[in-house]
Amino acid sequence: MKKINTSPLSGMQELLPTEQAVFDQLKQNISDVYHHYGFLNIETPIIERTEVLLAKAGGDTEKQIYMVSKTAESADSADQALRFDHTVPLARYVVEHSNDLAFPFQVTQINRNFRGERAQRGRFREFYQCDADIIGREKLPIAYDAKVIACIYDALKTFNLPKMIIRISNRKVLAGFLQALNLTDKAEIISSVIDHAEKVSEEQSRSALKEAGLTEEQVQKVCNFMFTKGSYDEIVEKLTVILGDLSPVQAGLDELKQVTDILETKKTGNFIIDFMIIRGLDYYTGTVFETMLEDYREIGSIASGGRYENLCGNFTEQSFPGVGGSIGLTRLFFVLREYGLVNMATNQPIDYVIFPISTNEFEASFELADKLRSQGKTVDVDLSDRRLGDKFSRAGKIADYAIVIGNDEVLSQKYQAKNLKTGETIELV
Amino acid sequence: MKKINTSPLSGMQELLPTEQAVFDQLKQNISDVYHHYGFLNIETPIIERTEVLLAKAGGDTEKQIYMVSKTAESADSADQALRFDHTVPLARYVVEHSNDLAFPFQVTQINRNFRGERAQRGRFREFYQCDADIIGREKLPIAYDAKVIACIYDALKTFNLPKMIIRISNRKVLAGFLQALNLTDKAEIISSVIDHAEKVSEEQSRSALKEAGLTEEQVQKVCNFMFTKGSYDEIVEKLTVILGDLSPVQAGLDELKQVTDILETKKTGNFIIDFMIIRGLDYYTGTVFETMLEDYREIGSIASGGRYENLCGNFTEQSFPGVGGSIGLTRLFFVLREYGLVNMATNQPIDYVIFPISTNEFEASFELADKLRSQGKTVDVDLSDRRLGDKFSRAGKIADYAIVIGNDEVLSQKYQAKNLKTGETIELV
Repeated sequence: MKKINTSPLSGMQELLPTEQAVFDQLKQNISDVYHHYGFLNIETPIIERTEVLLAKAGGDTEKQIYMVSKTAESADSADQALRFDHTVPLARYVVEHSNDLAFPFQVTQINRNFRGERAQRGRFREFYQCDADIIGREKLPIAYDAKVIACIYDALKTFNLPKMIIRISNRKVLAGFLQALNLTDKAEIISSVIDHAEKVSEEQSRSALKEAGLTEEQVQKVCNFMFTKGSYDEIVEKLTVILGDLSPVQAGLDELKQVTDILETKKTGNFIIDFMIIRGLDYYTGTVFETMLEDYREIGSIASGGRYENLCGNFTEQSFPGVGGSIGLTRLFFVLREYGLVNMATNQPIDYVIFPISTNEFEASFELADKLRSQGKTVDVDLSDRRLGDKFSRAGKIADYAIVIGNDEVLSQKYQAKNLKTGETIELV
Repeated sequence: MKKINTSPLSGMQELLPTEQAVFDQLKQNISDVYHHYGFLNIETPIIERTEVLLAKAGGDTEKQIYMVSKTAESADSADQALRFDHTVPLARYVVEHSNDLAFPFQVTQINRNFRGERAQRGRFREFYQCDADIIGREKLPIAYDAKVIACIYDALKTFNLPKMIIRISNRKVLAGFLQALNLTDKAEIISSVIDHAEKVSEEQSRSALKEAGLTEEQVQKVCNFMFTKGSYDEIVEKLTVILGDLSPVQAGLDELKQVTDILETKKTGNFIIDFMIIRGLDYYTGTVFETMLEDYREIGSIASGGRYENLCGNFTEQSFPGVGGSIGLTRLFFVLREYGLVNMATNQPIDYVIFPISTNEFEASFELADKLRSQGKTVDVDLSDRRLGDKFSRAGKIADYAIVIGNDEVLSQKYQAKNLKTGETIELV
């Protein structure tokens, strides 16, 4: 027989059933919180027109994209590709269906995306992203930025992780700050230096800024800026020291105040204003945020997002401002397991396995199974003709309890469930 | 601005949020029943090695397959493709992870598959299949065939459809029958004629059989066979008339008896033995079944499956007999909507929308929202600064109730929920 490699392709997550059950539970937790917050689920196709996906994307995205072609029609091979995130398909969806949507449109997408990145440990080419977005028509109050942050934070709370911290910034503050320093023309390189500052030494950041042509004084101010963090009142005080006049950054500060006031009112846990947060050179225009585990900062951001004033700019002249955030569940699950931060030793995926001793007990077994199922339990009836010992061995791998049904049980209608971990038996009522 | 087409690609289902909520509920119903039956969920990657997908598939599948390539590495463009069903990836998964699985392995996959078929109304290129399979090691008792059928039937029962009928046959009966008639060498063409018999007139089936070289008497016997249906005792009686000696079909009959006896014991609704059921020229080797709506036979099968003695034959010398079934949810949802058989007018996707009159009521609004959410309700807090009329208009599209919170409500801590359909108000406690 020709030997075929049966491992999954590299960069693809493939879990055993017990692991999958934990992953599914975390995904369900996120979905439940998003849903409880009033976000509506949608599913866009995994395959899109290439021109839709690449309407905005830069060169890197294009290199990472999975192109799709039908074998019979290779002529159109460049026309279709797998989506690399939920945001671009969402923008298309909003334009296509805008007349049928109720704005602000609170929408969630929890599904797989694809990037043909170079495979390496902990990087995935196929990965779940759990997005929550709010899209307005013409305008969308800043209060919604706080709502998205609170919602994603509450979703993560279901993971029972060690202390989380939400780090919040606003792109308008950075823009105003650079304008005040006459550095607007160097915005891209400075953003990039701040974005990477946590991964390098302060000295390296300073060198990079110098190389970009900043004066000693400008370098110092940018460093003072990017290390600014704290409560709203604290960062206002610090910025006043750096800038003197706050008017160039006032618009951004007002938004930060609104967002943090609401998070305060909503009693959303541990958050901080932190100007080191940039979120890449992405499409964000105002609020940006990241979430970290305070004692595991090396993990990096576990959920992030921000405000984009013009979601659908590549598809329409209409204005659809939005704010959104995302939990990259596949990577997060991988990392949390590496750190032992996800509880894999939960209950087994099945509650009960029933063993009818012979076909004579099938009827009673089916009836008991249906009764337990109607109570929301998961029940497997083992119909195999193997020895009882083998059946117990299988059940121990997948279930919490086993119930043996023989003639006595059928006659008495009394059933005992044996805990497969402790050996204890309990009477079923 | 360059005009980009924002419609989804043809052959892709894209639903509005309220439709998606109904679709999601049906999918959840299926998942719940499979899970309650003790099936364990797995997810295999959407992208597989082409050699895995095409290890068995014939020419048609190859034409319909979506090939995948990374733009930067077009060299490997023929190596990867999108899976076209769950069965081939399952076979690979079972071989890859067999040492970590508990056999019989009861497994479900509910996810999207891809076929580049010619697009036409009601045919989808991206579609959900909801599979339930049971895989044995070396052997798997026939009782499991009944289990899969009962499970899929129970899953469909949650749809509240008009009367369903399960049609069951067994490939071994057909094989034995053709052997008794010395027609084994024409098995493929005869199977194909029976498979299509429902779509053409009896006369056309007879002509096709004659063309295949069958004698008048053989044609008559094949027709008598394929129109044979009924209870086990009835079909035994009819087959005896056709064949005289039942020994060539006895193995298949024994399996049919076991399956139908268990379905009887399990009180699984309306089923019938029906030799017109073939399930294509697929890999099935024993039991085959289809489910139809008795009063909407033109819809065709809404769920089907069968026994395959050698699931992993292309990947290993080991024997993994299996039985499985599948609900093609995307097509089913489309057809049921066409026939008005799916209840789209369920509750709105959101339970409550709360309108704080001003930011002063944010705190009370957030508290009430969290309280309702902790009771399992879905709650949107409308933070927009639009007029109350506009807010009500939006809420009416997505929610069942609206709650206005002003200063009075905050002081009294009494909240009224207004039913957005009837206008009735109820006091929240």
